Amino acid sequence: MMRTRPLKVALLGCGVVGSEVARIMTTHADDLTARIGAPVELAGVAVRRPSKVREGIDPALVTTDATALVKRGDIDVVVEVIGGIEPARTLITTAFEHGASVVSANKALIAQDGAALHAAAEQHGRDLYYEAAVAGAIPLIRPLRESLAGDKVNRVLGIVNGTTNFILDKMDSTGAGYQEALDEATALGYAEADPTADVEGFDAAAKAAILAGIAFHTRVRLDDVYREGMTEVTGADFASAKRMGCTIKLLAICERAADGGSVTARVHPAMIPLSHPLASVREAYNAVFVEAEAAGQLMFYGPGAGGAPTASAVLGDLVAVCRNKLGEATGPGDSAYTQLPVSPMGEVVTRYHISLDVADKPGVLAQVATVFAEHGVSIDTVRQTVKDGEASLVVVTHRAPDAALSGTVEALRNLDTVRGVASIMRVEGE
Amino acid sequence: MMRTRPLKVALLGCGVVGSEVARIMTTHADDLTARIGAPVELAGVAVRRPSKVREGIDPALVTTDATALVKRGDIDVVVEVIGGIEPARTLITTAFEHGASVVSANKALIAQDGAALHAAAEQHGRDLYYEAAVAGAIPLIRPLRESLAGDKVNRVLGIVNGTTNFILDKMDSTGAGYQEALDEATALGYAEADPTADVEGFDAAAKAAILAGIAFHTRVRLDDVYREGMTEVTGADFASAKRMGCTIKLLAICERAADGGSVTARVHPAMIPLSHPLASVREAYNAVFVEAEAAGQLMFYGPGAGGAPTASAVLGDLVAVCRNKLGEATGPGDSAYTQLPVSPMGEVVTRYHISLDVADKPGVLAQVATVFAEHGVSIDTVRQTVKDGEASLVVVTHRAPDAALSGTVEALRNLDTVRGVASIMRVEGE
Repeated sequence: MMRTRPLKVALLGCGVVGSEVARIMTTHADDLTARIGAPVELAGVAVRRPSKVREGIDPALVTTDATALVKRGDIDVVVEVIGGIEPARTLITTAFEHGASVVSANKALIAQDGAALHAAAEQHGRDLYYEAAVAGAIPLIRPLRESLAGDKVNRVLGIVNGTTNFILDKMDSTGAGYQEALDEATALGYAEADPTADVEGFDAAAKAAILAGIAFHTRVRLDDVYREGMTEVTGADFASAKRMGCTIKLLAICERAADGGSVTARVHPAMIPLSHPLASVREAYNAVFVEAEAAGQLMFYGPGAGGAPTASAVLGDLVAVCRNKLGEATGPGDSAYTQLPVSPMGEVVTRYHISLDVADKPGVLAQVATVFAEHGVSIDTVRQTVKDGEASLVVVTHRAPDAALSGTVEALRNLDTVRGVASIMRVEGE
Repeated sequence: MMRTRPLKVALLGCGVVGSEVARIMTTHADDLTARIGAPVELAGVAVRRPSKVREGIDPALVTTDATALVKRGDIDVVVEVIGGIEPARTLITTAFEHGASVVSANKALIAQDGAALHAAAEQHGRDLYYEAAVAGAIPLIRPLRESLAGDKVNRVLGIVNGTTNFILDKMDSTGAGYQEALDEATALGYAEADPTADVEGFDAAAKAAILAGIAFHTRVRLDDVYREGMTEVTGADFASAKRMGCTIKLLAICERAADGGSVTARVHPAMIPLSHPLASVREAYNAVFVEAEAAGQLMFYGPGAGGAPTASAVLGDLVAVCRNKLGEATGPGDSAYTQLPVSPMGEVVTRYHISLDVADKPGVLAQVATVFAEHGVSIDTVRQTVKDGEASLVVVTHRAPDAALSGTVEALRNLDTVRGVASIMRVEGE
């Protein structure tokens, strides 16, 4: 069954991930050949800085003209690890037009333009794979798209950003503040110089859009994902979480509504019980919980980023795409047939943990409780404390629509006896 | 792309799993049609007791003649959930000969005859899928075979039997003895009337053989798997484990030797640190840790058995096999190209935790330590206790070949001052 003409691979980008992909393609060439059924050959590497020395890569393969590389016509698979929207999008589209399949690690692009790119792949009878775009080395897209293809996924709950998990884990375990924990993450290379994409939840939101679309066989755009960052999380929040037997994680949550007629996708910090398997995910690890009707509760855990882990996912896709090419087949593509609408955040049903600074006088609790009742939000527990003349109320609600909960908080802010809303956090995973 | 002629599925066996497969095929027919690209039709159900009422299954489809069903010639996919070696093996082979692909949940058969069955599938250009054979609903075979196809797996460490995990978890959390915990497992339906296959490790050994073969791209026969059951584990063992910061799990361990030239596969109870993610796998849940060169440490967690979870895995395979059939392709088949030999248990490098009942007199420790030294086994810690005139020694070794460790234990048994070897347990996952 072995054929000798090699499959030709064009690598777009040769940074942390790309160089690792090239290294493994060289050092493990025999294994890849055996697993694919034909040799794979690195046919070209498009980079921005051609003068940089790249160990193990033949300088003759290096080019700055990525467009010419994907237009060559003899390329079987394009591996795109540039990131960002352009020029990646145009290069991928051009690759399909010139007969190549594509393996990408580009979460931002797939989240924004996945539908159009899948359509282009299908039009040209080619594959578009992107396991590396979500949760690095953790097999997640293939299990959702293929292993659970006969099941009905109802919920995906995940820690899909390693940087923020590292920061929150440090804050939890050492009592460090946000800035101190961020500085440590930066020093260790877990956070970028500009950490906005991570700490403000943009990275996780892109992954949530991709996961929700695949899990529910519908279309979830980046704009459909509700997003809150984790820069406001404080030591006091962790103390409150501990009193509830919880910790705090930045979660991506994709849910099918109880009536099955719509879905939601959101990213925000949340308290989760210490007994939940996601609570013990430490450092920069990622983990994703999947609840399916027949399968029950599944969890996938592993390194969510880094050169080698991401390259592992890219190469798994590369092997699959090459096998498809040899078999003149394509793998499972886009599946959005359910056309389930995405509901806004206000319709998400969740619980709030609210800390209020209040006046230390009688009747405050009654006033506050009345506001909750007026908004149809049922209170689970209330804790009142007075310390150094400062009174505070911590209210944990039962499940209610997010709109009712945020309406309650707005009304509380307008009470004379409420001096301030110290923190609001959702409680998940129960 | 939708075609209207349905793909025909023959179901062999209609017990806990089979009835759930039939139910989901009916209730989720529209989803399966959309995901496959064609309708799937239950074309026949082979059972042993045709008189039994099977809700939701048209009695006209029920037959006792499984052979005639797989020979019909119009069957696209045979789903085998009978279990056991025969008649399942002959039926699967016959199915291939008559043009059908096969989805099986039969770990015993795949572990014993996987190579021959894969060869038969390949000869006839058909698929053989069996995600449900290992760890129920947990996607494991597809991630190993496909997601990690570009990586090098070095180790698989798993809890792959729910019955024994339930028993050990009960013993650990409630202090129950083995028999008491087994009785509870039986009462709750987690253990069968004859629990031998589970508690003696036969079930886990079959899964270890399958996992090791796939992970290392070699052939691992059932006889190659070292196997020890967990019926001898006592409360005293759990107490010893706790003192070491460990718990006890029945583990399936597949390892590539340090020199890469061979592999090992084994099933036995072992102490693992409480900090290891496998330590917190409770009740009848399964979890498998995979260590790969590029990906790092991954874990897959979920329900390892049960009708609905196993059916979820079967249906995921069914969708994949049907898609392949429509695309006139086959999925990734057998991969045993490395031909790595399987080393015997004696060559496994591990650690022992040994409890000895000894004479309460001077010089015993020196004698015991000499025996270890003579066998080239280095001691990590020793703890001596005297209680009610009974002296005991607990020795924990450094890593050494299992043959040297078991040779040491044999020699200790022959010492006059050693009254008995109370327990021996391996220590893993560090």
